[in-house]
Amino acid sequence: MEQLPVFSAETLFLFTTQILEKVGFSAEDAKAAADVLIEADLRGIDSHGVARLDGYVNLVKAGRLNPSPNLKIVSEAMSAATVDADKAVGLVSGQFAMNLAIEKAKKTGIGMVTVKNSNHFGIGYFHTRLALNEGMIGISMTNASAFVAPAYGLDRMLGTNPMCYAFPGKNGDHVVADLATSAAANGKLEIAERLGKQVPEGWVMHSDGTPSTNPAELKHGGLMLPLGSFEKLGFHKGYALASVVDIFCGVLSGANFGPFVPPFPAYAPLPEKQVGEGIGHCFMAIRVDAFRPEDEYYQAIETWKETFRKSKAVEGHRVQVPGEPEFRFEQERRNGGIPLVTSVVEKLNKLAAEFSVDPLP
Amino acid sequence: MEQLPVFSAETLFLFTTQILEKVGFSAEDAKAAADVLIEADLRGIDSHGVARLDGYVNLVKAGRLNPSPNLKIVSEAMSAATVDADKAVGLVSGQFAMNLAIEKAKKTGIGMVTVKNSNHFGIGYFHTRLALNEGMIGISMTNASAFVAPAYGLDRMLGTNPMCYAFPGKNGDHVVADLATSAAANGKLEIAERLGKQVPEGWVMHSDGTPSTNPAELKHGGLMLPLGSFEKLGFHKGYALASVVDIFCGVLSGANFGPFVPPFPAYAPLPEKQVGEGIGHCFMAIRVDAFRPEDEYYQAIETWKETFRKSKAVEGHRVQVPGEPEFRFEQERRNGGIPLVTSVVEKLNKLAAEFSVDPLP
Repeated sequence: MEQLPVFSAETLFLFTTQILEKVGFSAEDAKAAADVLIEADLRGIDSHGVARLDGYVNLVKAGRLNPSPNLKIVSEAMSAATVDADKAVGLVSGQFAMNLAIEKAKKTGIGMVTVKNSNHFGIGYFHTRLALNEGMIGISMTNASAFVAPAYGLDRMLGTNPMCYAFPGKNGDHVVADLATSAAANGKLEIAERLGKQVPEGWVMHSDGTPSTNPAELKHGGLMLPLGSFEKLGFHKGYALASVVDIFCGVLSGANFGPFVPPFPAYAPLPEKQVGEGIGHCFMAIRVDAFRPEDEYYQAIETWKETFRKSKAVEGHRVQVPGEPEFRFEQERRNGGIPLVTSVVEKLNKLAAEFSVDPLP
Repeated sequence: MEQLPVFSAETLFLFTTQILEKVGFSAEDAKAAADVLIEADLRGIDSHGVARLDGYVNLVKAGRLNPSPNLKIVSEAMSAATVDADKAVGLVSGQFAMNLAIEKAKKTGIGMVTVKNSNHFGIGYFHTRLALNEGMIGISMTNASAFVAPAYGLDRMLGTNPMCYAFPGKNGDHVVADLATSAAANGKLEIAERLGKQVPEGWVMHSDGTPSTNPAELKHGGLMLPLGSFEKLGFHKGYALASVVDIFCGVLSGANFGPFVPPFPAYAPLPEKQVGEGIGHCFMAIRVDAFRPEDEYYQAIETWKETFRKSKAVEGHRVQVPGEPEFRFEQERRNGGIPLVTSVVEKLNKLAAEFSVDPLP
């Protein structure tokens, strides 16, 4: 494989903030948004990092993303709230909402905040990290535009609707379950397509429901499959989980849901019918010491991790704690830098030229 | 197939309360516990209904289940609490905890209650129904004794650890996502074994990690697989979800977790090491109107259900809303009665003889 150019997190962060300020973000919001994108790249979730910067810029140009939004709390109880994001990017509205959840959790033990009228929020983990930083459990979910079939279905009804649950551990070694509720995330299809590889049966299907191993199947009207992939392996469970995310993020918040969620690409038309505002998210912050003394919790979670890590694994593997691969990626890339494929560097430098920003070194 | 004897829910309820009172339950607790078991039978989850009554009785006899427990709140915040169940059956402690969560949600919008020192709680749906009855969203989770392998693992580390999310709809037509986080629930293995059938590859594996289609594989040291079943179909996601349930129910509450969770069969030895007390549960109640006006929520959830039900399905199927099959089962069985296989009737009548209770008619 060719040697990819490598950039430090700081370089990419500075670049990203400059572009975002040029399209109208405040300095503060540009930093907040760049934080999420760079964190995705650091954790090896390259599909959600700076590779998407032009996608967000295009949404601003199309008038679908408001670079200087006025975020408002439109419903509130002591432990609960809904935020109208005023078409903000979810990278920013997500942090606003999670910080609100954290403030509530400080008082009552739990905070839960839904967001409507928003746009894509990047990686779910980033937002839960705000809770982790306070020693709290964090949960984040978002709905997304529909590519996934329900169990036995042939219409695109659900997004890859990820859920992220993050439990604080000692020394930054947290347990992080961050998963798309589809059999495979979109990014994995993109990677297979770029490499010219077929994907396993169970990730996508043809529009008529027959199996496909073509990573570009979605471009031909195909559909993604929910986690579980097949009837006999429990695809109704993946469908149920995606529905849970959709209802929390769309139905409860007042955002769009199901097939009505707006697409990420600015060139893709909005669904004909809108049943709510923008896309929706849901966040929770949970104070550990509301349930048991903090030292007992930390002792237990450390035992939990140690027990799983010491357990027997199949040849050539070891049992990792959920989130461990991304944690190791982040340690590596914070020191060694973030490799970017040529097409991403080119896209970024096209943005640099357009907005008179210094190109990547 | 032979015609099975059929019993009304009322008959089985009365029978169950009588047995439970004989082993020391108060009249109130006996009714509460019987409610959960009969609801499981009504919803077609026969593995979790009266078929398990002798299992609970055996736990009482073994001194592992306290029929007259003193439930105590051992930690509390405005929206949060942990309950020490004093070795109660989860059928009862679960309702106590969910009712506490509901009281908290009435004040703050959200209530979340964990339970330690408990025993199996039956079907997760029953407990969420208490929230549904108040027009609230309900969540329930429990950990369970370990049969499931982590991703790439060869040790039994996690239970089938179910999660149930229930969203209120109009006219009792709720959206209920109630799922074991393993590829298949234990009950499905039992049914296949009873019918002499093989199970699909992806449900269980041999103790060395090689594939198996034997429904009795667990009796030969085999393991269950997490939702996703295989590396290429995302079994790390099922593992992550089972971990989430285990940490909420065990680590956060102070119950046992992972391979240390006590087994349900009274004859099975306790794990050598105990890292907490009994098994653990986690419940949440969420007040819809803390997030948006109730009428808007109900309009949206009805649109959600209608949209999914009207969507295109593969030949011979239709798209159902999560929980719809069980809802239809319940409507049928409430009118037509609950069929019981002969071995279950025999087990129940053995209990009847032992405790001088009238046998089933």
